[in-house]
Amino acid sequence: MFDKFREECGVFGVFGHPEAANLTYLGLYALQHRGQESAGIVSSDSRILRSHRQMGLVADIFNEDILSKLTGCSAIGHVRYSTAGSSLLKNAQPFVVSYSQGGIAVAHNGNLVNAGLMRHELEEGGSIFQSTMDTEIVVHLMATSRASSLVERIIGALSRIKGAYSLLFLTEREMVAVRDPHGFHPLVLGRLKGTYIVSSETCALDLIEAEYIREIEPGEILLIDDHGLTSYKPFTPLNKCCIFELVYFSRPDSNIFGRNVYAVRKEMGRQLARENPVDADIVIPVPDSGIPAAIGYAEESSIPFEMGLIRNHYVGRTFIEPQQSIRHFGAKIKLNPVKDFLRGKRVIVIDDSIVRGTTSHKIINMIRNAGAREIHVRISSPPTAHPCFYGIDTPAKTELIASFHTVSEINRFITSDSLEYLSIEGLRESVKNGGCGFCDACFTGEYPIEPPVDLDSRQLTLFEREIVI
Amino acid sequence: MFDKFREECGVFGVFGHPEAANLTYLGLYALQHRGQESAGIVSSDSRILRSHRQMGLVADIFNEDILSKLTGCSAIGHVRYSTAGSSLLKNAQPFVVSYSQGGIAVAHNGNLVNAGLMRHELEEGGSIFQSTMDTEIVVHLMATSRASSLVERIIGALSRIKGAYSLLFLTEREMVAVRDPHGFHPLVLGRLKGTYIVSSETCALDLIEAEYIREIEPGEILLIDDHGLTSYKPFTPLNKCCIFELVYFSRPDSNIFGRNVYAVRKEMGRQLARENPVDADIVIPVPDSGIPAAIGYAEESSIPFEMGLIRNHYVGRTFIEPQQSIRHFGAKIKLNPVKDFLRGKRVIVIDDSIVRGTTSHKIINMIRNAGAREIHVRISSPPTAHPCFYGIDTPAKTELIASFHTVSEINRFITSDSLEYLSIEGLRESVKNGGCGFCDACFTGEYPIEPPVDLDSRQLTLFEREIVI
Amino acid sequence: MFDKFREECGVFGVFGHPEAANLTYLGLYALQHRGQESAGIVSSDSRILRSHRQMGLVADIFNEDILSKLTGCSAIGHVRYSTAGSSLLKNAQPFVVSYSQGGIAVAHNGNLVNAGLMRHELEEGGSIFQSTMDTEIVVHLMATSRASSLVERIIGALSRIKGAYSLLFLTEREMVAVRDPHGFHPLVLGRLKGTYIVSSETCALDLIEAEYIREIEPGEILLIDDHGLTSYKPFTPLNKCCIFELVYFSRPDSNIFGRNVYAVRKEMGRQLARENPVDADIVIPVPDSGIPAAIGYAEESSIPFEMGLIRNHYVGRTFIEPQQSIRHFGAKIKLNPVKDFLRGKRVIVIDDSIVRGTTSHKIINMIRNAGAREIHVRISSPPTAHPCFYGIDTPAKTELIASFHTVSEINRFITSDSLEYLSIEGLRESVKNGGCGFCDACFTGEYPIEPPVDLDSRQLTLFEREIVI
Amino acid sequence: MFDKFREECGVFGVFGHPEAANLTYLGLYALQHRGQESAGIVSSDSRILRSHRQMGLVADIFNEDILSKLTGCSAIGHVRYSTAGSSLLKNAQPFVVSYSQGGIAVAHNGNLVNAGLMRHELEEGGSIFQSTMDTEIVVHLMATSRASSLVERIIGALSRIKGAYSLLFLTEREMVAVRDPHGFHPLVLGRLKGTYIVSSETCALDLIEAEYIREIEPGEILLIDDHGLTSYKPFTPLNKCCIFELVYFSRPDSNIFGRNVYAVRKEMGRQLARENPVDADIVIPVPDSGIPAAIGYAEESSIPFEMGLIRNHYVGRTFIEPQQSIRHFGAKIKLNPVKDFLRGKRVIVIDDSIVRGTTSHKIINMIRNAGAREIHVRISSPPTAHPCFYGIDTPAKTELIASFHTVSEINRFITSDSLEYLSIEGLRESVKNGGCGFCDACFTGEYPIEPPVDLDSRQLTLFEREIVI
Repeated sequence: MFDKFREECGVFGVFGHPEAANLTYLGLYALQHRGQESAGIVSSDSRILRSHRQMGLVADIFNEDILSKLTGCSAIGHVRYSTAGSSLLKNAQPFVVSYSQGGIAVAHNGNLVNAGLMRHELEEGGSIFQSTMDTEIVVHLMATSRASSLVERIIGALSRIKGAYSLLFLTEREMVAVRDPHGFHPLVLGRLKGTYIVSSETCALDLIEAEYIREIEPGEILLIDDHGLTSYKPFTPLNKCCIFELVYFSRPDSNIFGRNVYAVRKEMGRQLARENPVDADIVIPVPDSGIPAAIGYAEESSIPFEMGLIRNHYVGRTFIEPQQSIRHFGAKIKLNPVKDFLRGKRVIVIDDSIVRGTTSHKIINMIRNAGAREIHVRISSPPTAHPCFYGIDTPAKTELIASFHTVSEINRFITSDSLEYLSIEGLRESVKNGGCGFCDACFTGEYPIEPPVDLDSRQLTLFEREIVI
Repeated sequence: MFDKFREECGVFGVFGHPEAANLTYLGLYALQHRGQESAGIVSSDSRILRSHRQMGLVADIFNEDILSKLTGCSAIGHVRYSTAGSSLLKNAQPFVVSYSQGGIAVAHNGNLVNAGLMRHELEEGGSIFQSTMDTEIVVHLMATSRASSLVERIIGALSRIKGAYSLLFLTEREMVAVRDPHGFHPLVLGRLKGTYIVSSETCALDLIEAEYIREIEPGEILLIDDHGLTSYKPFTPLNKCCIFELVYFSRPDSNIFGRNVYAVRKEMGRQLARENPVDADIVIPVPDSGIPAAIGYAEESSIPFEMGLIRNHYVGRTFIEPQQSIRHFGAKIKLNPVKDFLRGKRVIVIDDSIVRGTTSHKIINMIRNAGAREIHVRISSPPTAHPCFYGIDTPAKTELIASFHTVSEINRFITSDSLEYLSIEGLRESVKNGGCGFCDACFTGEYPIEPPVDLDSRQLTLFEREIVI
Repeated sequence: MFDKFREECGVFGVFGHPEAANLTYLGLYALQHRGQESAGIVSSDSRILRSHRQMGLVADIFNEDILSKLTGCSAIGHVRYSTAGSSLLKNAQPFVVSYSQGGIAVAHNGNLVNAGLMRHELEEGGSIFQSTMDTEIVVHLMATSRASSLVERIIGALSRIKGAYSLLFLTEREMVAVRDPHGFHPLVLGRLKGTYIVSSETCALDLIEAEYIREIEPGEILLIDDHGLTSYKPFTPLNKCCIFELVYFSRPDSNIFGRNVYAVRKEMGRQLARENPVDADIVIPVPDSGIPAAIGYAEESSIPFEMGLIRNHYVGRTFIEPQQSIRHFGAKIKLNPVKDFLRGKRVIVIDDSIVRGTTSHKIINMIRNAGAREIHVRISSPPTAHPCFYGIDTPAKTELIASFHTVSEINRFITSDSLEYLSIEGLRESVKNGGCGFCDACFTGEYPIEPPVDLDSRQLTLFEREIVI
Repeated sequence: MFDKFREECGVFGVFGHPEAANLTYLGLYALQHRGQESAGIVSSDSRILRSHRQMGLVADIFNEDILSKLTGCSAIGHVRYSTAGSSLLKNAQPFVVSYSQGGIAVAHNGNLVNAGLMRHELEEGGSIFQSTMDTEIVVHLMATSRASSLVERIIGALSRIKGAYSLLFLTEREMVAVRDPHGFHPLVLGRLKGTYIVSSETCALDLIEAEYIREIEPGEILLIDDHGLTSYKPFTPLNKCCIFELVYFSRPDSNIFGRNVYAVRKEMGRQLARENPVDADIVIPVPDSGIPAAIGYAEESSIPFEMGLIRNHYVGRTFIEPQQSIRHFGAKIKLNPVKDFLRGKRVIVIDDSIVRGTTSHKIINMIRNAGAREIHVRISSPPTAHPCFYGIDTPAKTELIASFHTVSEINRFITSDSLEYLSIEGLRESVKNGGCGFCDACFTGEYPIEPPVDLDSRQLTLFEREIVI
């Protein structure tokens, strides 16, 4: 799946390690798939916060010189993939300010649903804003709080906001990890000897060889300071984990929501084969995201698995478009079919989802031109017919092909010989073992929090008063 | 005079011209001598503010692409030379925020004396700060004001602060120019056909061929909008223009405080010759700042003027220090004596001031090594014995050689054969024609505003909670 | 296989297309796996050659502005991965000079065996050298030739040199493609309507939707000009294609030496399973190069194929090493095991080759730490015990673990439970259908051209007279 | 004088100092006025040459890291201002190659008159060229020589070429300084304790505190190696020093051709005042080049000297042109008149030369608009009516206003009230004391070497076969 949904962020934090910024850098490296637009690290040496934020990839932003200046034993980091129009350095995170209690940095994964309303109210009260991130609202709420302790200020602020948030706060002497009551996005706790680690996904714990302890629970506020861990649970947990994290976003080598992502995806493929069998010669994935489901499908159907599409690993961030005459170029630059192998074959193509349908169309064409006899597309999740308001950057409803088209219309549009999706029941079945409930609003339209009507989160752009050039 | 005092800023604004950002770029170019650390421009197209700020020189920061994106008919710009430790992009100006009334940008030349106190008070009230500039305080005071109009909010904010400020505000539809009641730093109004221009100095009006109208008066608040000019004078003018602007900072081709800078400096040289004559063969300036006074001295004394020191125009911002064995290197790289011409001569060296004395020492040595027979130093202002709190970045008192040493001690230190300064009476006489009063605290210690004691403006660094790397 | 062998180059050329430079850029993009150190394009508009060469990846080097300046209807390009010590811009290709017949550019894939001797001879004759590339020798030989036509000069030069070379020449009006008599490295001819395309591999033809015509034959000199194609075959073909191109270098979606690379690798995996079966639960590849052989092995053995190692796609070119305490870091940053899936399993790991053994050691450890019960390594080629002199940048013999160690010693070193290689007979069997003969000297030590003894190609560094900083 | 003539180069060398590259960097810094397009340094540690060349200014090209890599006790450097079209990195100097005798680097100030012919001859003989610098010819001639020693090869090569050349050669173990028989451009020898220094001008010796020894004589070849200095004089000296070095190019603090430049220029101003007196109120220079002559004129005429035009020191290399409506912008950005001082005055403006007349026109206008009552232009050299072929980048004859216009026509064009030039006799008189003869062909058309007719040096661009993008 290319250029379809975009996860908005990943967060990572370290408390109590002499190489805190270095470990955070490595953690962000492992979470790079959650955001490629900008990245940042803030460290604390108990006296002052030091920050570095920049547009670009983690590997390009940080070097030894910069990391060596991010001194101190605690640090938090962030990778970001913002929505269009706000992809600016001023919106890069972690966000850092000074307020009456000292300095505070915050890294946020998710999206607030009542951000517009809250910002309006704060500005009326005399607050000035320097970014258009909903995250800035949380800090203003903390600053105007009368509470005396950090955790109380955080609780006060969170009780005013609605939406999805996995948050990491860093002050001179404390780190706080927060997961919203629904528990939309993952956030896990790990340990590296005496050091506590917090990360969006477990794959980042693996890289630094930290031990996995547990998930931050929905509604939990976890304070980490020199006294160790203190857990606060002021909010009733609602257990609505984002099912799309399992379908597409998280890395297959991560364990989130009590499940191994690779195993869950393979099970989706198996279930897909049971629901939608078809006679064919080979099963091929759209790499890399379709690989686990394709392996599951191949196993269940006993049809051979093949890598019929090869991915170019050197695709840069900028690419110069060639003349119009090269058809389906956008897909071609990333994928190339193994022509000799596909020629004359009946092919099952496995992908995890279809958003606009244009990329699928290009891929089908490439396979067709390579000489495939039949092309049967099987999607390891139900049709994505509803936009997300909780931190997944889906296109507007009008651009989601499944919002207004039947499966058979989509099949015609992408020119496959047949197209089938995994059913919502099949999807739920595939993820059933593990304990938490799920938000599957993108498939069902059943939103656990009322989507914003008037001054919604998307309308924070209404507050855009400065365009930085 | 090299590496001695540093002016903190220059400001420039344009209201009502289709090429507002371009003109502002040119204006900043002409004001570059007032700050070489960072620069920025904010433009407005009546709906949104667009900004570009960067570390470096105006000519390196802006290009056609960037300027073409700074659309709209009004713009303000800023060049900055901050104090050490805060030379960060986050402190680059103009400073832009969003508040309840929309967007606002501000460019500031000067220094607030009660900044620490005000910031403390604002943070207690729930404000969060993202920079350590005193300028951010002004905007917070405006945001928390209950007044309904822009000008009233500005008046409310200014009535709380003390210090030196030539300010330019830009909103979507208005520009406001402000000069503090003392009128420390210059700020002039010009016109280019129907367009109003505001600038720190007149040399920037000349470059864009704008006509000079008048100075913004001490204590005046000048609103420029679609209805034209509206002047507010809520504060009693105190008339304490910074005499050092005439001695050193402003460009000789500017007219400020009702005087032509070149002419005033030449008169200081004449007065210096009258007060401190000496028998010699030639008069040479320390270029370029010492040239007008040297010409005046030469004329008054009838001793020939010569360019005995040649300035290297290609001195870059970074320079690699050579081995210790090259003596007086810091001065050498910028100046070279015309050896053949100085050999055997009795030389009068004219400079505008002496700060630490080390540079003067190096220059005297160079001239001595070139074979000069006698070296008589004449300074076209009195000894600078007191630090400035109003926007001139003087070193601390302990580093000002004239704070703790007599003229004859300084003469010994810099190894000249004789050293004389212009008297304070002579200086005042030189600038007497023109009408305004002067702050000459750097020479006399007579401060027009009580210097901060406890939470002083210099201690804004106490509020430094984030070091950006 | 990571960081093991490095292909030295890829070449691509277009003759007769108004977007020649753009197509060449796309071709190099598809050939990026053949060299990531530097890239360059030279175009001709019939009157003058225009060039752009730079260190870095194709996507970072070229932009629209640069490509638009590479005007003309013919172009050649090059990607390079040089040996250590000469990774300099002056050694980037295509190499361009002026000589008596006009301008000439050359792009070279391969390595000359008698380069040292020839350079010595040329310098004695009065030639001056500006690079240490063996390619410069070819141009000097052409310049000192007395022949009148371009092709005759090329034939004259080639008759003096020994080694591996797939060459592309570009003059103002002609393009010439050459493959050495052994045909070591691939070079194919394609067509895009009336335009001729030459490329190292067919995957680059696919990207631009060009039709594959045929291979340039071993010993062939193919002139492409306004009269079309003219083929010269002055040298007896010796047919010794590099078998390592099939084992590792070429992209699996390419067809080279008359074979589909993916299919050949899968067959190597099948053969490996037949020769070296083992009872186990899953077959996993070292991605991506081990995937086709692993699929073949899984099919032949009926043991399930799984992606047990996940590759991080965001590995940058520079990476900051963490502290020593993170074990096997070099492998970890690129690969992460799917822990939950490997736990308790008996695992067969498929890779294409082992060079030093250190990377394999790290991978085995990662899998072991993930909880695998048994680890059986199977390599889809024989032990690589002999260095290459024909353009593959193998380490020196002393660093090739298979040069001095038995398979069972290597098994102990990399800590696998068992280790087996494909036999040389099995390898030859796997590639037998297709017609050409092979150089398999890296496995057998049977060198088709005597390796250099004295002034060998590796000793061109002896001629290094200038280090560019 | 702005944008008029451009000197092509400056050279600097150090033999026998542990900080050779550092000293060379400083030397180039002091010679920056002789070329601002590119710079380079080559050092030798007795075994290998190390080089760094780049487009830009010395201060931007070199940093501590780069200088620390330019190891060794000898080094040569070069600053360059090439003619249009060849301003490419490949033409940056010093030029370094490998030939039969080892490595050799060369830095060249001047221009060969028979370069086209020699290049044609060399290409016919089998030489290949990688640049279009005439300097490459010298090295080819040395490489094809049969002579055994370095100096003999140099003598052999020089006996084939005609033109202007101050050359510095560096091999692993030797440095050679050469000045052509006419001695067009300056080249001086200095000493820093036991270390020999060679420089285009003495101002660079001053900066590093080296002692001036003597000039390299016209036609001299000076070998510097571990045995010390060995002087060769195989060519008859012709003594035709470039008078324009004294008029404009060299720095006023340098001594060249046995004269102090500042003193000579002041004398030209005195002579100008004697030849062309005029009744006026003030004498002002066009800064900085016109300052010494203006001081001389003022002294001789007893009319006060004033700095009526202020130079902006922050003019960057790139500048964004404002809208057409700002008149005479090109001059304005660099100079600004002191309006209050010029108003109502009768002004004598002193400049060193007029090339196209357009800049003078703009300056006159600026002064007129500032309110001057009369403007009398006095030029401290005769009309420049003839192009230079020996290393000064004059425009073509058709662009030299004095080639086709009388003084009174030029006066009308630049809109001055009167215009007078120094006579050729007056110029010769001003420079008479010092001993060497002069080439004054730019004023008289009396060329000491026949200008090229057919394959001239300017036509090296005919050999341009590659445009580097």
